[in-house]
Amino acid sequence: MNDWAGLRPTRDDRFSFGLWTVGWQGVDVFGGAIREPLDPAEAVHRLSDLGAYGITFHDNDVFPFGADAGVKQQHLAPLRRALEETGLEVPMVTTNLFSHPVFRDGGFTNNDRDVRRFALRKALDNIDLAAELGAHIFVAWGGREGAESGAAKDIRTALDRYAEGFDLMAAYVLDQGYDMRFAIEPKPNEPRGDILLPTVGHALAFIEELEHSELVGVNPETGHEEMASLNYAHGLAQALWHGKLFHIDLNGQTGPRYDQDLRFGAGNARGAFWTVDIVENGGYDGPRHFDYKPPRTEDMDGVWATAEACMRNYLILREKVRAFRADPEVQQALRDARVDQLAEPTMAPNETVADLRKESFDPDEAARRGMGFERLDQLALEHLYGTRG
Amino acid sequence: MNDWAGLRPTRDDRFSFGLWTVGWQGVDVFGGAIREPLDPAEAVHRLSDLGAYGITFHDNDVFPFGADAGVKQQHLAPLRRALEETGLEVPMVTTNLFSHPVFRDGGFTNNDRDVRRFALRKALDNIDLAAELGAHIFVAWGGREGAESGAAKDIRTALDRYAEGFDLMAAYVLDQGYDMRFAIEPKPNEPRGDILLPTVGHALAFIEELEHSELVGVNPETGHEEMASLNYAHGLAQALWHGKLFHIDLNGQTGPRYDQDLRFGAGNARGAFWTVDIVENGGYDGPRHFDYKPPRTEDMDGVWATAEACMRNYLILREKVRAFRADPEVQQALRDARVDQLAEPTMAPNETVADLRKESFDPDEAARRGMGFERLDQLALEHLYGTRG
Amino acid sequence: MNDWAGLRPTRDDRFSFGLWTVGWQGVDVFGGAIREPLDPAEAVHRLSDLGAYGITFHDNDVFPFGADAGVKQQHLAPLRRALEETGLEVPMVTTNLFSHPVFRDGGFTNNDRDVRRFALRKALDNIDLAAELGAHIFVAWGGREGAESGAAKDIRTALDRYAEGFDLMAAYVLDQGYDMRFAIEPKPNEPRGDILLPTVGHALAFIEELEHSELVGVNPETGHEEMASLNYAHGLAQALWHGKLFHIDLNGQTGPRYDQDLRFGAGNARGAFWTVDIVENGGYDGPRHFDYKPPRTEDMDGVWATAEACMRNYLILREKVRAFRADPEVQQALRDARVDQLAEPTMAPNETVADLRKESFDPDEAARRGMGFERLDQLALEHLYGTRG
Amino acid sequence: MNDWAGLRPTRDDRFSFGLWTVGWQGVDVFGGAIREPLDPAEAVHRLSDLGAYGITFHDNDVFPFGADAGVKQQHLAPLRRALEETGLEVPMVTTNLFSHPVFRDGGFTNNDRDVRRFALRKALDNIDLAAELGAHIFVAWGGREGAESGAAKDIRTALDRYAEGFDLMAAYVLDQGYDMRFAIEPKPNEPRGDILLPTVGHALAFIEELEHSELVGVNPETGHEEMASLNYAHGLAQALWHGKLFHIDLNGQTGPRYDQDLRFGAGNARGAFWTVDIVENGGYDGPRHFDYKPPRTEDMDGVWATAEACMRNYLILREKVRAFRADPEVQQALRDARVDQLAEPTMAPNETVADLRKESFDPDEAARRGMGFERLDQLALEHLYGTRG
Repeated sequence: MNDWAGLRPTRDDRFSFGLWTVGWQGVDVFGGAIREPLDPAEAVHRLSDLGAYGITFHDNDVFPFGADAGVKQQHLAPLRRALEETGLEVPMVTTNLFSHPVFRDGGFTNNDRDVRRFALRKALDNIDLAAELGAHIFVAWGGREGAESGAAKDIRTALDRYAEGFDLMAAYVLDQGYDMRFAIEPKPNEPRGDILLPTVGHALAFIEELEHSELVGVNPETGHEEMASLNYAHGLAQALWHGKLFHIDLNGQTGPRYDQDLRFGAGNARGAFWTVDIVENGGYDGPRHFDYKPPRTEDMDGVWATAEACMRNYLILREKVRAFRADPEVQQALRDARVDQLAEPTMAPNETVADLRKESFDPDEAARRGMGFERLDQLALEHLYGTRG
Repeated sequence: MNDWAGLRPTRDDRFSFGLWTVGWQGVDVFGGAIREPLDPAEAVHRLSDLGAYGITFHDNDVFPFGADAGVKQQHLAPLRRALEETGLEVPMVTTNLFSHPVFRDGGFTNNDRDVRRFALRKALDNIDLAAELGAHIFVAWGGREGAESGAAKDIRTALDRYAEGFDLMAAYVLDQGYDMRFAIEPKPNEPRGDILLPTVGHALAFIEELEHSELVGVNPETGHEEMASLNYAHGLAQALWHGKLFHIDLNGQTGPRYDQDLRFGAGNARGAFWTVDIVENGGYDGPRHFDYKPPRTEDMDGVWATAEACMRNYLILREKVRAFRADPEVQQALRDARVDQLAEPTMAPNETVADLRKESFDPDEAARRGMGFERLDQLALEHLYGTRG
Repeated sequence: MNDWAGLRPTRDDRFSFGLWTVGWQGVDVFGGAIREPLDPAEAVHRLSDLGAYGITFHDNDVFPFGADAGVKQQHLAPLRRALEETGLEVPMVTTNLFSHPVFRDGGFTNNDRDVRRFALRKALDNIDLAAELGAHIFVAWGGREGAESGAAKDIRTALDRYAEGFDLMAAYVLDQGYDMRFAIEPKPNEPRGDILLPTVGHALAFIEELEHSELVGVNPETGHEEMASLNYAHGLAQALWHGKLFHIDLNGQTGPRYDQDLRFGAGNARGAFWTVDIVENGGYDGPRHFDYKPPRTEDMDGVWATAEACMRNYLILREKVRAFRADPEVQQALRDARVDQLAEPTMAPNETVADLRKESFDPDEAARRGMGFERLDQLALEHLYGTRG
Repeated sequence: MNDWAGLRPTRDDRFSFGLWTVGWQGVDVFGGAIREPLDPAEAVHRLSDLGAYGITFHDNDVFPFGADAGVKQQHLAPLRRALEETGLEVPMVTTNLFSHPVFRDGGFTNNDRDVRRFALRKALDNIDLAAELGAHIFVAWGGREGAESGAAKDIRTALDRYAEGFDLMAAYVLDQGYDMRFAIEPKPNEPRGDILLPTVGHALAFIEELEHSELVGVNPETGHEEMASLNYAHGLAQALWHGKLFHIDLNGQTGPRYDQDLRFGAGNARGAFWTVDIVENGGYDGPRHFDYKPPRTEDMDGVWATAEACMRNYLILREKVRAFRADPEVQQALRDARVDQLAEPTMAPNETVADLRKESFDPDEAARRGMGFERLDQLALEHLYGTRG
């Protein structure tokens, strides 16, 4: 690849953005809005021009909390028009069950039953909208499902209620004949002290207990896993191993601290390389979705620069990952590291434990073999640097 | 409870210790052994005197790596004698697949197939010993199963091999008619940069893919979850929710840093309170097992003081947890926080989505209700402090 | 101490609260206000009733950003009246240089010179007000002084500007004859990716370069140090060692994650014990100031419960620390741990290196001595538990 | 730069390695040695061949603990010969006050006075050796100076003893006329629960209290700062601002977890870019010293590959940093981000507060200006990627 300047996203790259990303006004715990509200229709046009293929949103990114049918349509109309004009898709929709004060203790697992019921209604309504807009993925980030203290939330009971919520939504989707699947987005903490289903692993395990577990997968977010010191690419790989990587949220983070939501590529640069590697080569075929927040330092020009950079960094890394995998020296280094040997079952076909036990083996001799991992990793790093070929 | 001084562990409390805990000689990355080797038989007698009901061990805590049958028995004989003399049980056994250099890249997921096969043999041999000693739990901590770099380990393939290992062990146990179950011990990192199955959640999800998943559960360790900023009690609760809490490793940790393995009660004091609460009240009926390391500052007197303190702290916290749960003011505060309401299903029996949608609800009105969580938590804290009643 | 229920704060305990603590409306990155604005005068009365001796504030906690002299006085008048009516003091005042969008890149170290100049004016104006209200401490938390990326902020130049700001403020205070000192509040990150002067240590070092370093100390906050995995009590101790502990911000945190600002006592319970130990016994004589945020789950009753609990937990821990220090068994354990020996200089008076080198010493022999730290720490833990005496 | 393959370290690049790096045998808490001892003389020859200009060591990297003069010389002789043969320098020497069990509670701040005295003798002896070998920097990493629990270590007293140790060493160096300075290496934790002087900031502050503070600076290590979630490049910048960056320890780390000591370039790739930027452009003129541990997966070929990679990655990043700083688009972006404006003092020469207060300024207007930081950071990232020019 030599024409880096000419690298441009196309719709085939399937890049999508949440409206809440470029539309983030910058409100945080310590300060108010620093950017004007962004009209969703304008966001659609700008993202289309930049090369995205789709946009996603929470209900209240487009219409106000509590909007009645008329108000909803009034707000949706210009969005629909922009989608038509641009041809952009809405591959995913999600519900905001965390911003309004009624969700102070969460939605599906709120201790208050009437709030849980309201949360269900709000989610179901938005599933209808999602189906109408052609979305096939419905993401569930339960950001306020959790606790700051030990007795306030009975975790097992909360998981019962959480499961009840997903079972109801899945039954509804089947009932309505919607072609829609759910993707749970784990997060360890913030805005709650501890959030339910804190990692990809916890969500994957939870899903197995659901009535329609086949309809539910995960939506891992880069920063959320890294906030728990976990390897995001490993999380994606395990989700793929379970057949459950239904959606992804790409962004950047610098280890355990507040949720930074940096543009993709910023933060953990080597992690981003391995992220693209597993996304491209691990059998994932959904959107490349960015869920990030343009820093408060930026005006709208800066916002669009970050949106562009998210896609560009993905494309750059995709080229680098391809070059890495195609590099004959890398392929030799992978063999030297016996990465291929791991694919061979440990037991031979039909081998018994008795057979296995007959084998002789000198562990001290074997212990002298180096694995060659550092040389392999240095090759990967040099592909990231662009210092090979 | 007024007679704190008189609080003494009994065998009914089911406290167990790994031989490697009191026997840790203090070798770390930066320094060598600071305590003499501890004779396993002496450990058994001392722990028995202190009130433990059982001990656990890795094969090479008792006999050397590579020991043949004769040498094994020679080392096992005094241990067996001590167990008989004291009546201590061996509720759990585990295999060391991480100390010998042959395991530099792990055991079951080592890139080298012959090392994987050796690891299987070593584990199977030790399962035989575990069964012979009456252990019903076999713990698997795959501390070296992981990677420091991205290309060295294909995570999905590694999970295939990991599953193959558990499937083989489970089939073997069934085949031999052993009354034994497996408990996977997750850890996010150290000694590898990233370890496979890094949290309780990842292990629970993995287990669902196993052939004999009913035989496999988890063995969560306090510090391992806290190294990933996760709430240990929440992890135990989710494991219980899945019916998979087969064993526990209690110790102390101070957040994300190296694996401290402090005595139980040290580190996160409030976490320990909620840990005992869920262990006592969540339906767990296995051993209360301590997996910790007496700090290098201590001589053997200090070692025994820490063993005693692990049990004592558990008993103290058990009293406090009981008092907390029995406190009428706490019970009222739980109701005020609507913790009981979470147990009521969100949907009424036979209620339909259509029914649900008919309900009217004023979110702004509901949003004014406080949850009363802080008052509840302060009551819990005062029970920890011992400043109530 | 037996009458825990009777433990009540008095003004002699010197508890103070930021108006922004009980007044926090709950706005965070993911949701809006969940509590009504709290009238500063009401806050003063309520805190007075609860036993506080003082309140503190940022300029814009009381009057709006950009208020002219008239508007300021209009907002200050009821506050002054409440202070008179209650007798509460204003021991500390601080300036908000982080909420208004103009401070998107900070105040004193903003790349924009005109913003820096505006920040200086805002701070100087508020110093006048602080002096008028009798405050002797002016806290400076530079929450937006930092960067999310590498090239945007030249750190050395930023430190030049930061120092310029403090030099100017100190000169102004001297010039005006105000009896006022400054206290820098360090924080590692959030809301910026990395903040300047990220820990107590960095701030202490910085202060030494200032023109009037004698007027500048630190205001360490519990959670801020713990977000960097640092030991807060150790940070206080080092600040005291330098003679620079001018103010403290007490709250609760659970390790590296977002800034939780829990009530004092929540979070790290053992850390709180050692915090009170060093605050009480380390020579600090300033206010016991709480800087926390009542969780969003709470209504105003919950808010006042947390304010009460902050003070109560401090008093409880003060009793426990006193009992710990007075406990003869603890005193013996301290001697056994040779804590007293550390106070003896390593070199004898007038001893030379040559003298020192003459000494013979058997390190292997000495290496056998245990330190007795675990037994000592267990005694401390039991004082926290209230299970001694 | 096009000839990346031809990039080779020369002695002018001033790369140095600790003998304990390539010589690390792989002992950790969970496993024993996996590599044979490496002969120091061989290390010197190999590192020389690879392009290093110097080696550094702890006393006991070369001769055994407790060695008498004869044994020392016996072990030093081949090292000296190798240094002569290769022309390699010894720019830095350090003392091991952490491996032998006598240092279980540290050296200079051990509660046991006789251990402190022994530690001083050991350090002084090694200073003599350092001087004899021509080293001008003496590094002090007090890895065991700290505590796992609150009462065991009186921090202020410990700092007194720590200062006493540095004052004695500095006086000795002056007395002997050695041309030698000291560099304190901070670390937050591991192997102690909390270590004294946990960050660059704490060490810088401490130094100001020393009798001969001009002789003492810091030796920041990449991973040590990142274990506390701190920005290493910012730490280097602040140390330079204080004129105290006497030495550096370059390696790799992935956030708060155990001390990984990865090869330089691995871990935080973007952090490494900014590290080289400040090292090259911030006025540091000491050795580029690598303090890392070749992972246990590697045999000796892997070890040498990592040593080579440390230097190569530094050189690659140096080229990239130069290209970044020379790029006209970057220079424009820096101006757009007003990075240059930060260099202008906030106050005009001779300007008074009264003058300052006369200025009119519209904060709302100013608040609309974006900082352009993201675009600038994207340019930096593309220089890291090698996708520009």
